[in-house]
Amino acid sequence: MSMRTPLCELLGIEHPVLLAPMAGVSGGALAAAVSNAGGLGLIGGGYGDADWLMREFNAAGDARIGVGFITWSLARQPQLLDLALERNPAALMLSFGDFKPFLHQIREAQTKSIVQVQTLEQAREAVDAGVDAIVAQGTEAGGHGGTRATLPFVPAVVDIAQGIPVIAAGGIADGRGLAAALALGGSGVLCGTAFFASNESLASDHAKQAALSGSGDDTERSSVFDLARGLNWPSEWNLRTMRNSFTRQWSGDIAGLRENLAVEQTRFNTASAAGDMDVAAVIVGEAADLIRTKETAQAIVHGMISQAEDRLRFLARYADPIKGT
Amino acid sequence: MSMRTPLCELLGIEHPVLLAPMAGVSGGALAAAVSNAGGLGLIGGGYGDADWLMREFNAAGDARIGVGFITWSLARQPQLLDLALERNPAALMLSFGDFKPFLHQIREAQTKSIVQVQTLEQAREAVDAGVDAIVAQGTEAGGHGGTRATLPFVPAVVDIAQGIPVIAAGGIADGRGLAAALALGGSGVLCGTAFFASNESLASDHAKQAALSGSGDDTERSSVFDLARGLNWPSEWNLRTMRNSFTRQWSGDIAGLRENLAVEQTRFNTASAAGDMDVAAVIVGEAADLIRTKETAQAIVHGMISQAEDRLRFLARYADPIKGT
Repeated sequence: MSMRTPLCELLGIEHPVLLAPMAGVSGGALAAAVSNAGGLGLIGGGYGDADWLMREFNAAGDARIGVGFITWSLARQPQLLDLALERNPAALMLSFGDFKPFLHQIREAQTKSIVQVQTLEQAREAVDAGVDAIVAQGTEAGGHGGTRATLPFVPAVVDIAQGIPVIAAGGIADGRGLAAALALGGSGVLCGTAFFASNESLASDHAKQAALSGSGDDTERSSVFDLARGLNWPSEWNLRTMRNSFTRQWSGDIAGLRENLAVEQTRFNTASAAGDMDVAAVIVGEAADLIRTKETAQAIVHGMISQAEDRLRFLARYADPIKGT
Repeated sequence: MSMRTPLCELLGIEHPVLLAPMAGVSGGALAAAVSNAGGLGLIGGGYGDADWLMREFNAAGDARIGVGFITWSLARQPQLLDLALERNPAALMLSFGDFKPFLHQIREAQTKSIVQVQTLEQAREAVDAGVDAIVAQGTEAGGHGGTRATLPFVPAVVDIAQGIPVIAAGGIADGRGLAAALALGGSGVLCGTAFFASNESLASDHAKQAALSGSGDDTERSSVFDLARGLNWPSEWNLRTMRNSFTRQWSGDIAGLRENLAVEQTRFNTASAAGDMDVAAVIVGEAADLIRTKETAQAIVHGMISQAEDRLRFLARYADPIKGT
């Protein structure tokens, strides 16, 4: 297996597959497993728990991993960036907010900067700032995101990226998605849902089961679970999850949820602790259709690469043989 | 150029590129131009104007074309199906509603049936009914559509299609999108936005200019223009258009639009007649980023095929040479 794109050269990895830094899900063991399989695992820096972050860096052992932060949250606790950079991550990814104040420090540490964008306007900012790689994230992604969809968004970002590697995110959980991302001009993929139910994921067994049995038809974006978790997210991003009785009750009545917030937060917390996935959040995207078995992260990475290679080999028949290669 | 997928065999065409049957835009001249370029043009049957339909069939001359209907609208005027089938279309496409009552008549006429779906549940219905081909349409599409996104939706439909060719729609306007659709397991593409501003399109020059200068960042789904046009669409589908002052005023206040409907319909109709695209509807999708010049439909089809071939030839390097082809 060998699919060395420019992104692989940039990051010093064998396969162009990155683990999305899912808060509370992408811990050190999962990040290490993805890196050891030839991709790059990114620990999910989440909402700023320094002890958790250090513990998960330790859990990754000697593996060469990266880390991702929620930018608006990092801005409130910038010391977390110092802590992370002290661990010499292979890459530091910033999503959701103004990344520019942090770029100088990342460069000084000689760490690769990856910025995730949801609009062409944000992509232009990242290009102008000279980031090392751009994640073009589509709305079909699980977790937080915007409104653009991956398939038309990736080539539009590539067209303005001036050669900066573009990583496709949102809806990619198998080798077909990886092959499609490369067809679109992308240099690799960033996957969350694909790894959510892996052996090494920190998601609960109940959440993994719900993800494995769920369908992309049954996900939606809303701010319901951000309110339930007491997270004050900027309104331009919301959260894709599986639908359940909690979203069916509140996603069309956010004002009502706000009025009943104390009671509903208690109900949500109790359900989350009990593994009641009809109320708790299962944070996966539309690619839920494409994950069906609990596997090791290594099996997932290698399965993606192998399937993408098979697909590209099959498609080579459609490249005009007269022009030749 | 040769990219003969199973869909090409099914429909007897050279290239796996179909023109979306855009109401009021995909007339006979455009459908004929796409077919004459080696794809398949579908006239947009729209909301049931028999005279318009016959005129556009005539405008297609001797070209071998197909036709598409809005299923819930066709159910109100089923005689349009008789008229269309008398013209021996190469394919008859049904979108948005229960296609099953029409399937027998289409088969009897020995016309190929194509059914467009927006959910896996609808896809299963189409498979069970034994349609000839399925269009898996993503939310990034211009015009009416649902919520699933193309990139994860197409492989999920392929996985349940039992070998029925799956056509990707939504967000595809160049050869990269075509190559990606094939990578996902699709057998071809159905494109609207790609042809919206073509020479042969029936869209107004003002609308074409707005589409060519627009960005995918500036489209959204709403029911604003359906209300303004007096079209009573089922609530499960809405319309993606460019944002303009009309959508900015009303898309967040549908109740307000209903209250002021008579006045606003007049304003909308006046603006549409005058070519004022800050109020009138420009019905294109997120692929607006990928169209930049007014071209013939032939140039668009051939450009897509050529670019897709180039892309697949480039990607062949990533298919493991040890396993061979």
